[in-house]
Amino acid sequence: MQIIDGKAIAADIKKEIALQVEEIIATGGKRPHLAAILVGHDGGSETYVANKVRACEECGFTSTLIRYEEDVTEEELLSKVCELNADADVDGFIVQLPLPKHIDEQKVIETIDYRKDVDGFHPINAGRLAIGLPCYLSATPNGIIELLRRYNIDTKGKKCVVLGRSNIVGKPVATLMMQKQIPGDATVTVCHSHTADIEAECRAADIIIAALGQPHFVKADMVKEGAVIIDVGTTRVPDATRKSGFRLCGDVDFKNVAPKCSYITPVPGGVGPMTIVSLMKNTLLAATHKIY
Amino acid sequence: MQIIDGKAIAADIKKEIALQVEEIIATGGKRPHLAAILVGHDGGSETYVANKVRACEECGFTSTLIRYEEDVTEEELLSKVCELNADADVDGFIVQLPLPKHIDEQKVIETIDYRKDVDGFHPINAGRLAIGLPCYLSATPNGIIELLRRYNIDTKGKKCVVLGRSNIVGKPVATLMMQKQIPGDATVTVCHSHTADIEAECRAADIIIAALGQPHFVKADMVKEGAVIIDVGTTRVPDATRKSGFRLCGDVDFKNVAPKCSYITPVPGGVGPMTIVSLMKNTLLAATHKIY
Repeated sequence: MQIIDGKAIAADIKKEIALQVEEIIATGGKRPHLAAILVGHDGGSETYVANKVRACEECGFTSTLIRYEEDVTEEELLSKVCELNADADVDGFIVQLPLPKHIDEQKVIETIDYRKDVDGFHPINAGRLAIGLPCYLSATPNGIIELLRRYNIDTKGKKCVVLGRSNIVGKPVATLMMQKQIPGDATVTVCHSHTADIEAECRAADIIIAALGQPHFVKADMVKEGAVIIDVGTTRVPDATRKSGFRLCGDVDFKNVAPKCSYITPVPGGVGPMTIVSLMKNTLLAATHKIY
Repeated sequence: MQIIDGKAIAADIKKEIALQVEEIIATGGKRPHLAAILVGHDGGSETYVANKVRACEECGFTSTLIRYEEDVTEEELLSKVCELNADADVDGFIVQLPLPKHIDEQKVIETIDYRKDVDGFHPINAGRLAIGLPCYLSATPNGIIELLRRYNIDTKGKKCVVLGRSNIVGKPVATLMMQKQIPGDATVTVCHSHTADIEAECRAADIIIAALGQPHFVKADMVKEGAVIIDVGTTRVPDATRKSGFRLCGDVDFKNVAPKCSYITPVPGGVGPMTIVSLMKNTLLAATHKIY
């Protein structure tokens, strides 16, 4: 059994990106610039955005953080999005989700110029992913594929079960895993709350990608000997022994499942660190106009 | 066993559309207008376009057919696409595929205004489908879902196996079948040329959607008793007894498979007639601005 070290891979990739940025600067190019809009003070969002800013520093990117209070109007937010669309110095930007209820998230996403949509949430990027065209892949699917690639995990013709059908993980990662590419070319089954026998589906899988957000959903008796397990779950469970008051809990019962696996991602330190790196990769693609 | 009569359902829907058009006209509205661009004289394309023109008549739509010879330049074709984009009288239009090799199909598709892209091939429509937002669904997936709906076939929690992962059938119909909607909410597996044991996948399925383009691929011993079979295959096989010199052959060995099924679509007369009706539905949606 091998633990997939997302933290180490993420560090490697950030170093690779930093080298490319040095080259760009050395040849007279512009430093990649990622901007982020953060509305309100949600603890999770604050952490994610702070990590993104730090990753920008590690990669040698310029970063700009734009903050709004919880009561910002939709109009004001959309106007800032349009300003960033037009700002030639900003290569890509994100609006940290979730947004307050009075703001139409989908409208905000669709207002972002798809050529700067480094989160990959705009319908054009989602559509190009579905069709198999070059695009900004959204962070989590991108990170999962990169882990499979770096560990040379064989996916071709394998049975891959995706647990969860969300727009940001389940559906796009299922699409990537079934496409004629490596990693990919797998026989993919997407399971969800209405699946009749999710245990049986899991037991038949060579690869399980768990993205349900249900702590320890995947138990040892649901996993085939030698399976590859990718755990996307990051539920915060109260933990009085931690300074933060919580710990991150994956969708997989790691302790009991790990001994049966060929490869498994831990939580934290598996998929998580890869998501921010995916955003950095997209920002570099945007800055170098590799896609649009 | 019940044969799903796509021809009859298609006729019903065309009558429903024609009634809606009469109402539009009666209340002073504009007659829906579908335009089609046909390049060259490919037999299949000629037939499809002729059927689309006839369907427009049945629905009370205005139709315009624009023809180019095989040697039309990409520039000329793109300029016509832009003209149709700007033509306020044209509600929707299609460019019949395939195009000659010297023309970049994807470029043509992406030049079509997505609001007039009634074939649903533009990345914005593919992306909105993937995300689950209202959009022009492409013809075959749209037709399949409509057949399941009209026959009240239970899909929730059922195991659905999709054979084929094309951009115009396999991937989009898989997405629709897994989404939280009815028909839909199924546990979907997408199989293809690299699937290790396609027979076993099929035998486990409650619903098989066969879109491989391999005549009689699905045999009786691959089908569970009581399964629902949707046959998307329409391969032309030589047949000296026919005036045309060929007959359409489905992906399913209908004669031997049908007795085991609860529902099955024949070829021809199953999914085929529904695809053109889907185009008519999209044109009506475009004319009435129901989506964009």
